[in-house]
Amino acid sequence: MLSSCGGKGNCGKCKVVITDGEIDPGKSRSFLSAEEAGRGYALSCLTHVKSDLTIEIPPESRMQAKHKIATGANMEELIKLMQRAGGCLESRISRVYLEINPPTIDDNISDYERLRRALDKAGFDSSHLHMNYMMLGELPRVLREGNWKVTVSVFSVTAVLEVLDIFPGDATLTRYGAAVDIGTTTIVVYLVNMTNGHVIGTASAYNSQVKCGDDVITRIVYATERSGLKELQTLAVGNINTMLAELSEKNNIPPSMIDYIVVAGNTTMEHLFFGIDPQYIREEPYIPAATFFPLIRGKSVGLQVDPQAIIYSMPNVASYVGGDIAAGVLVSQIHKQDQVSLFIDIGTNGEIVLGNKDWLVTAACSAGPAFEGSGIKFGMRAMEGAIEEVEINPKTHDVNYRVIGDVKPIGICGSGMIDALAEMYLNGVIDQKGKIREEIGSRRIRRGESGLEYVLAWRVESAINKEIVITEVDLDNLIRAKAAIYAGFSTLLSQMNMTFADIEKLYIAGGFGRYIDVERAITIGMLPDLQVDKFQFLGNTSIMGAYYVLLCDRLRHEAEEIARRMTYIELSVSRSFMDEYLSALFLPHTDLNAFPTVGQELEHRRNLAGKEGPG
Amino acid sequence: MLSSCGGKGNCGKCKVVITDGEIDPGKSRSFLSAEEAGRGYALSCLTHVKSDLTIEIPPESRMQAKHKIATGANMEELIKLMQRAGGCLESRISRVYLEINPPTIDDNISDYERLRRALDKAGFDSSHLHMNYMMLGELPRVLREGNWKVTVSVFSVTAVLEVLDIFPGDATLTRYGAAVDIGTTTIVVYLVNMTNGHVIGTASAYNSQVKCGDDVITRIVYATERSGLKELQTLAVGNINTMLAELSEKNNIPPSMIDYIVVAGNTTMEHLFFGIDPQYIREEPYIPAATFFPLIRGKSVGLQVDPQAIIYSMPNVASYVGGDIAAGVLVSQIHKQDQVSLFIDIGTNGEIVLGNKDWLVTAACSAGPAFEGSGIKFGMRAMEGAIEEVEINPKTHDVNYRVIGDVKPIGICGSGMIDALAEMYLNGVIDQKGKIREEIGSRRIRRGESGLEYVLAWRVESAINKEIVITEVDLDNLIRAKAAIYAGFSTLLSQMNMTFADIEKLYIAGGFGRYIDVERAITIGMLPDLQVDKFQFLGNTSIMGAYYVLLCDRLRHEAEEIARRMTYIELSVSRSFMDEYLSALFLPHTDLNAFPTVGQELEHRRNLAGKEGPG
Repeated sequence: MLSSCGGKGNCGKCKVVITDGEIDPGKSRSFLSAEEAGRGYALSCLTHVKSDLTIEIPPESRMQAKHKIATGANMEELIKLMQRAGGCLESRISRVYLEINPPTIDDNISDYERLRRALDKAGFDSSHLHMNYMMLGELPRVLREGNWKVTVSVFSVTAVLEVLDIFPGDATLTRYGAAVDIGTTTIVVYLVNMTNGHVIGTASAYNSQVKCGDDVITRIVYATERSGLKELQTLAVGNINTMLAELSEKNNIPPSMIDYIVVAGNTTMEHLFFGIDPQYIREEPYIPAATFFPLIRGKSVGLQVDPQAIIYSMPNVASYVGGDIAAGVLVSQIHKQDQVSLFIDIGTNGEIVLGNKDWLVTAACSAGPAFEGSGIKFGMRAMEGAIEEVEINPKTHDVNYRVIGDVKPIGICGSGMIDALAEMYLNGVIDQKGKIREEIGSRRIRRGESGLEYVLAWRVESAINKEIVITEVDLDNLIRAKAAIYAGFSTLLSQMNMTFADIEKLYIAGGFGRYIDVERAITIGMLPDLQVDKFQFLGNTSIMGAYYVLLCDRLRHEAEEIARRMTYIELSVSRSFMDEYLSALFLPHTDLNAFPTVGQELEHRRNLAGKEGPG
Repeated sequence: MLSSCGGKGNCGKCKVVITDGEIDPGKSRSFLSAEEAGRGYALSCLTHVKSDLTIEIPPESRMQAKHKIATGANMEELIKLMQRAGGCLESRISRVYLEINPPTIDDNISDYERLRRALDKAGFDSSHLHMNYMMLGELPRVLREGNWKVTVSVFSVTAVLEVLDIFPGDATLTRYGAAVDIGTTTIVVYLVNMTNGHVIGTASAYNSQVKCGDDVITRIVYATERSGLKELQTLAVGNINTMLAELSEKNNIPPSMIDYIVVAGNTTMEHLFFGIDPQYIREEPYIPAATFFPLIRGKSVGLQVDPQAIIYSMPNVASYVGGDIAAGVLVSQIHKQDQVSLFIDIGTNGEIVLGNKDWLVTAACSAGPAFEGSGIKFGMRAMEGAIEEVEINPKTHDVNYRVIGDVKPIGICGSGMIDALAEMYLNGVIDQKGKIREEIGSRRIRRGESGLEYVLAWRVESAINKEIVITEVDLDNLIRAKAAIYAGFSTLLSQMNMTFADIEKLYIAGGFGRYIDVERAITIGMLPDLQVDKFQFLGNTSIMGAYYVLLCDRLRHEAEEIARRMTYIELSVSRSFMDEYLSALFLPHTDLNAFPTVGQELEHRRNLAGKEGPG
């Protein structure tokens, strides 16, 4: 059962209905509405079982199998994109086929020295050769099995040349790698044929760590508890192993043939994946254990691939701007352009980069996972049953919505929330501060347990036998989230003495980002009021960047250069950010002049309402 | 219970006496004498137990606690010897104390990058820094525990700088290392204070692998059976762990503070220690998996030291000339001299090096472990109860002997065998071929189960209630062994168109070597007939060389240079060796002119016998 608060009782994501048997609800009652309590709801995280129970898992607590997860760009396009970014098929690990002279009594050097000699002959410099002992133990057998014709995987760090693996015969054409995006919410895996760069298969799954907390802060707290760190690592590695196993099996590839893995994630996700305590990321002055992680082997983290496989993690910039953002910039190419661009990756957090070929500044705007459903009463991720589009009639204030999968709704996802917020605002259901205007007298407005709320779907329409509402608390959370994002943009710009007018392009990355309606996002003041053609959706740039680096070692250097070049601005201690944030806690903003198109639209709606209205 | 034949029944070293109960002797009867069978002897390796038993372990089967194992030179002398060999206290691993600026919100680079910066400031080049993940996981805690004052152990291979360990505060003065000699029969350990080079303690033990076979060939065969390789590795590592634990405890040093270990052994021992299959060492063209082994970590072989500890193994030359010999040459310094020297390490095998500063040739003469007791009816190692000196009265042919520990004898060790052989020959008990001269009519000569034998100690004198004899089979084995050694010397010399007259110095290394009486060894033709002052005993040069390399990395390079320079001659396929060997199967040699002092001694004894005799 999911419990995105880490079992503290305040997220309500693990609600169950007790239909038979005896429980001690513990403190869980205080987190349930009177109606829910009356209908037998309980929070499974806090409830003590006192007899055999019959329970029902209500739809809102179910993790749906059918869902939308952005796995990146069109697979056929990927290589071209990579090449357009200056990449080539020259990976960090290479394979070389060697035909070796067999030993004789007069040429009786050891197997290892013989391999060394053959490598030197093939143009390598083996003066600082290394080979793991497991491999060395295999060497005599494989050399003889291959009748002294073998393929070796080699890998070098400066002058040190390491033999990672050795195969009998010619195995130069069976090299596989994996690109992995470890998102706070979602993990995506690409299985890649390293000889031609083709993506053989893609898979995605929710990050099982979600049950230990929705956002990075909750996870960090969880990691510092007893065996939390190990558990979190095991969960993420388990997800990746499951996906790699499925992809390998489907494509008939032994997982042991995967010898290079590039991982991209935010700084905390990379720490957790490697089993490194992230505790100081959370405490001022917010210091990660590492930003550029040393290489690690597949077996050390428990990945079921070649035990010697090299795992490279995309370089992080700071505690709250991770390797996923270095990957994103690499894909966006803003670091090579004359013009100044903004880049935002909207995931569980919102990370922003501003810059061009000469400079790059970055910040994380801790928007929080509201748009992913956390802290929103009926919030959920973009999966079957989620309201993803909302339209409100300016006059009747009635609602039209579209549900993912065309089924009865169980909740509302991020794009639905943006729509709802925009529509409620434009049509006068809420004021500029996000307060519900009870005075308009709509039957959809009512007083709930946490104040005023607006009914999006009536009980009969919903799949959960309850009204799906959006509360003032929800509205407040969404406005805080959108304000944080906008304030992030403005703070970075003001740091560079620039305004939105200087921005040529605004790139939107991230799985969630793909489903944003830009105009609606402008309406609520989450995105700046730029010409619509200045916005460009890039998709999941984290996995795409990992894929680039997997295939082309030159692009790895470029990603590292990007991470080094980025100047990180810590917004949580920035006075300027605080000011910008407070100004952005309005719809669309305190300064309506910054949102001319929203003003026009408001005007237009008011006219419309006036014409069609009773007057 | 020891079984040096690997449990095949033919060594007789695991004899027990069944005093009560029922057994099925299996095939063991065929390996026992009628007398032994009559007295209830059984071979424990082949006997099946059919009821509860009362058994007695006869003295000859006991591994005595008190024994002589040469652990090397005088401990106080060792540093001086090392320095005289050009060594210094500059090990491969160094420790550096760093005072690091703590992070602030304006200087918020990660812990790892901060360490990197501090290392660069301290004069290192961290551009290719590496750190194991276990260590990286510790880094944040240790930095804060030490209040940003820490000591790091660093280690570099070319441009790659690795942080092996990190300690809070100043830990530059608590560095320990270990030198280990893995002999086929004996393992010796030195625990060393790396900051001043002092040997803190030494320990030695029989190599527990002995129960899987006495010599390298039997061990190789054992290693190829089922889990034999793993077992052999575990046995040797277990021995070393036990000794390290004892030494650490006695000296109040945490074993985890041992971070550098240099191991010397013959090629097979090094393979087994690292768990590498040695099978092709045994099959023509005799190819080891490696001669220069890659580095390995303490935890990978199961050593209970710092898990990141570096294990370096002395470089091997070929399948039968190992790292112990490279160590020996380093200690002997023959590779730096103008004059030509011979070097021999007499252990379970006999390895010979001939050369000077310009060239080095080497060979292994597969003498076999006869002088260590294997294949000799009452043969045993040099421990309590072993006859170590023998004197035969030229006239009465009666015997005087000295026993280690001044107790009743249970067998005869190597130096005793050389003595016995020399005395029997000089006093006419045996002829030039090693055949017992029944015609002399001594009551000590009798016909035993395997032909003629000579009684060294009567039943009443012995601790085993049996006569201790030396048989013609024993004599034959000893002559073969000494012939192999001498033929090794001659073959190397003839390869270089030299004779013994060209030899300025003959260095004798090896634990057994220390107890050889040079004159007696010349008498039997094991050592060439050179002036006695040309011989020099070096002791256990394997452990000494490992100690040199442990402390001084320059000497490691020198040892590698030595191993590379040595030209290996495979005697087992050498026509010339075979000729030399056949000529040496006499006492002292077919060519008596090569042994003038033996001729003189014979003359002298004959005169003595004549004068004192009845005539």
